[in-house]
Amino acid sequence: MTATRSVLAAQATDFPRWFQDVIAKAELAENGPVRGTMVVRPYGYAIWELLQEAMNRRIKATGAVNAYFPLLIPESYLQREAEHVEGFSPELAVVTHAGGKQLEEPAVIRPTSETMIGEYMAKWIQSYRDLPLLLNQWANAVRWELRPRLFLRTTEFLWQEGHTAHASAADARAYATRILYDVYRAVMVDVLAIPVVPGRKTRRERFAGAVNTMTLEAMTGDGKALQLGTAHELGQNFARAFDIGYLSSEGRRELAWTTSWGSTTRLVGGLIMVHGDDAGLRVPPAVAPVQVVVLAVKDEAIAAAHTIADELTAQGVRVTVDDRADQPFGRRAVNWELKGVPVRIEVGPRDLSAGVATVVRRLRDSAKTTVNRTDLAATVVAAIDADQAHLLAEATERQVSRIADVATVEEAIEAAASGWARLPYDAVGEEGEDRLGESGITVRCLQRPDGSLPVEDNEPGLTAYVARSY
Amino acid sequence: MTATRSVLAAQATDFPRWFQDVIAKAELAENGPVRGTMVVRPYGYAIWELLQEAMNRRIKATGAVNAYFPLLIPESYLQREAEHVEGFSPELAVVTHAGGKQLEEPAVIRPTSETMIGEYMAKWIQSYRDLPLLLNQWANAVRWELRPRLFLRTTEFLWQEGHTAHASAADARAYATRILYDVYRAVMVDVLAIPVVPGRKTRRERFAGAVNTMTLEAMTGDGKALQLGTAHELGQNFARAFDIGYLSSEGRRELAWTTSWGSTTRLVGGLIMVHGDDAGLRVPPAVAPVQVVVLAVKDEAIAAAHTIADELTAQGVRVTVDDRADQPFGRRAVNWELKGVPVRIEVGPRDLSAGVATVVRRLRDSAKTTVNRTDLAATVVAAIDADQAHLLAEATERQVSRIADVATVEEAIEAAASGWARLPYDAVGEEGEDRLGESGITVRCLQRPDGSLPVEDNEPGLTAYVARSY
Repeated sequence: MTATRSVLAAQATDFPRWFQDVIAKAELAENGPVRGTMVVRPYGYAIWELLQEAMNRRIKATGAVNAYFPLLIPESYLQREAEHVEGFSPELAVVTHAGGKQLEEPAVIRPTSETMIGEYMAKWIQSYRDLPLLLNQWANAVRWELRPRLFLRTTEFLWQEGHTAHASAADARAYATRILYDVYRAVMVDVLAIPVVPGRKTRRERFAGAVNTMTLEAMTGDGKALQLGTAHELGQNFARAFDIGYLSSEGRRELAWTTSWGSTTRLVGGLIMVHGDDAGLRVPPAVAPVQVVVLAVKDEAIAAAHTIADELTAQGVRVTVDDRADQPFGRRAVNWELKGVPVRIEVGPRDLSAGVATVVRRLRDSAKTTVNRTDLAATVVAAIDADQAHLLAEATERQVSRIADVATVEEAIEAAASGWARLPYDAVGEEGEDRLGESGITVRCLQRPDGSLPVEDNEPGLTAYVARSY
Repeated sequence: MTATRSVLAAQATDFPRWFQDVIAKAELAENGPVRGTMVVRPYGYAIWELLQEAMNRRIKATGAVNAYFPLLIPESYLQREAEHVEGFSPELAVVTHAGGKQLEEPAVIRPTSETMIGEYMAKWIQSYRDLPLLLNQWANAVRWELRPRLFLRTTEFLWQEGHTAHASAADARAYATRILYDVYRAVMVDVLAIPVVPGRKTRRERFAGAVNTMTLEAMTGDGKALQLGTAHELGQNFARAFDIGYLSSEGRRELAWTTSWGSTTRLVGGLIMVHGDDAGLRVPPAVAPVQVVVLAVKDEAIAAAHTIADELTAQGVRVTVDDRADQPFGRRAVNWELKGVPVRIEVGPRDLSAGVATVVRRLRDSAKTTVNRTDLAATVVAAIDADQAHLLAEATERQVSRIADVATVEEAIEAAASGWARLPYDAVGEEGEDRLGESGITVRCLQRPDGSLPVEDNEPGLTAYVARSY
């Protein structure tokens, strides 16, 4: 594994550089030609596809349906909601010319689609019978980023954005909360093996146009925070701006209550930053495009490698055979480590005659064990399940151990040098947020003492999670 | 069904208007706010999702892998291939401002990604071992259309675009041909129940930058042609422009041969135009979001409707229950007809006591039959399979019967008033294409006498298919 370490910066020395190196060497993505854009390479995209499938299934289970709204939004739409346009204006990409002519009204490339979808919700909703209206779309979006970083903050990103309309504030809140927990947290924890802290954003960290932003925050390998998904209560702000109204069962005209919620290709960045180690990526089996690689050490082992692969495929395992026996074994092994494939099976001529194979579990310190050929499939299938759980346990342990309970903003600033801080929000307040901000630290989210989410900005007795973030 | 007919223009009277009406009334899509853009509504998108799944599976079976390339292409990229930029320039949407500033180099929104992907192929391909490189992406694209029409020609459309590089012209051709037949034609015929005529485009109808465009042409309900998918041999044009080279096994530096191929949301338009009738849409079961609707005529039948639906769901049928017993039965039935749901099961109180249900097969003249409750599930499952095949047979029959064999351009022009014409291309030629063009008619494609595809532009003895088109 020495060879691997040499191609990547060490995490402890320069984590952001390590992150860049892993993305390049594991062939996950690279920079696009227009500043801040990203090319997602096949291996990175395959992870995204598996993640997307898991997310899409859970979104549909909440009753939402997929649709597709245009990329190009008339500039005037954004201007209808004051906070929204103020928040997004600096990040817009604008189409001024098309078809060889200047456009009468410039069109912006969607930074998010509240305004576009608001316009259509207003048309489609007539009566209380049409509510709730639960829409989702899988799409690209563009926000001109000042400090782009692959997967985490790219000028163009891929995401799902959900947009719903409800007959009451309570119904809107209940649905957005369900998305936060049953969709986002479920995918993060059960699929990506990433523990997350749920909470409410403070006023200053809120989505532009929302009355409440709920977030899920993950801890990266270097102890920073990464926001992985948000669900917003939009109150009646967009309903008012786009006239999303309905006739109640009593025959009165009422304004709807809307929500929006999004999760992006940043989730792949989260997976890298939470699970990766100095040898490279470590992919949770649930989203691993290759769960098992069978490595034929020499030509004589190629046929056996394929037989093993077929057995595993029959058990529903995603498996690939590395039969490039003409290339150095060590380099191939290191490459699969870099790519974070959970289980590597090595088969050489000697193994064959001894009726065994070597199993290397990437998610468990790459410990090697010799397994009888007859037990191989069962052992590997069990390892896949166990190691998915192991990754989550490991990340949870780190998260718990690196959150320091402190009492003051000064202590929080000190603690945030190496992890997160947790302290009473009453000891922070808006003034404390200013001071944290001067040190590049933010309040990631607020929770009630029992871990549940506050429903008001100024509930007393809240706990603040404070950290540096990506 | 009289009620339905009144909400749609009659096909025989005004087919394009009927098309628009169906899209609106079946809630498939509507116009976006920026001219030519499209909102794909949930019902239309659900059809697209099923189609996409079928297409994606077959694309992957050819060995291609999915990736994602940026939406924004530097303007200079397009200029590197002379024919390509000439062909696409008039249709480009250009981003001149972003992040509050004018861009140093304007970026175009991808009209197609040969140039973007060519740039990365050049980086990723080193030796013959890296070939073939088989990439695909699911994405949106923008081409500023002069005469937009929902699904058929929208300013923004959804599609998959495949881009591959090969070590030889023969390999490139073989792969593009495989995509044409094993992916595109397979999906059109086996999934969408749309018979298609494969052929080679004439020089003037070719993709900008290609040396050969292969196409699949469908016949619409009004006897016109609709190009549903194309695969292009790009020769070494883009390899030269982007320096996509490789070291051969003999150690020589060679230029690669590339292909590209695309299919779009137009396929949904094709489905509507090929199968729809005066009562509305008719959706092939393979892509029907709802294959069976169980309609409870009265409140007393709601429980039974759900039981029937559960039985069908258990058999893998996509089924929905219409339990809006408080709304007029006739209006509900007409609505499901409009949406083209293949099978409708009607259950009323009298049916219940007689132990029967009424089955209406939308894809077979909506004939009603009374079926014993015990035979219901088996009957419906059999009907779904049979009616998928029936749709294809019906469309094939129409296509065959409306292609007229003629001998001259004049006869072709006459025949194209009500269908397609087929004649020797030697009797047309480039001069004949001009004359056809004056009447708004084009050569859709060329075939050899045995139905196979010509590999040269000027092969003698070719058959031309000639028609008006959408």
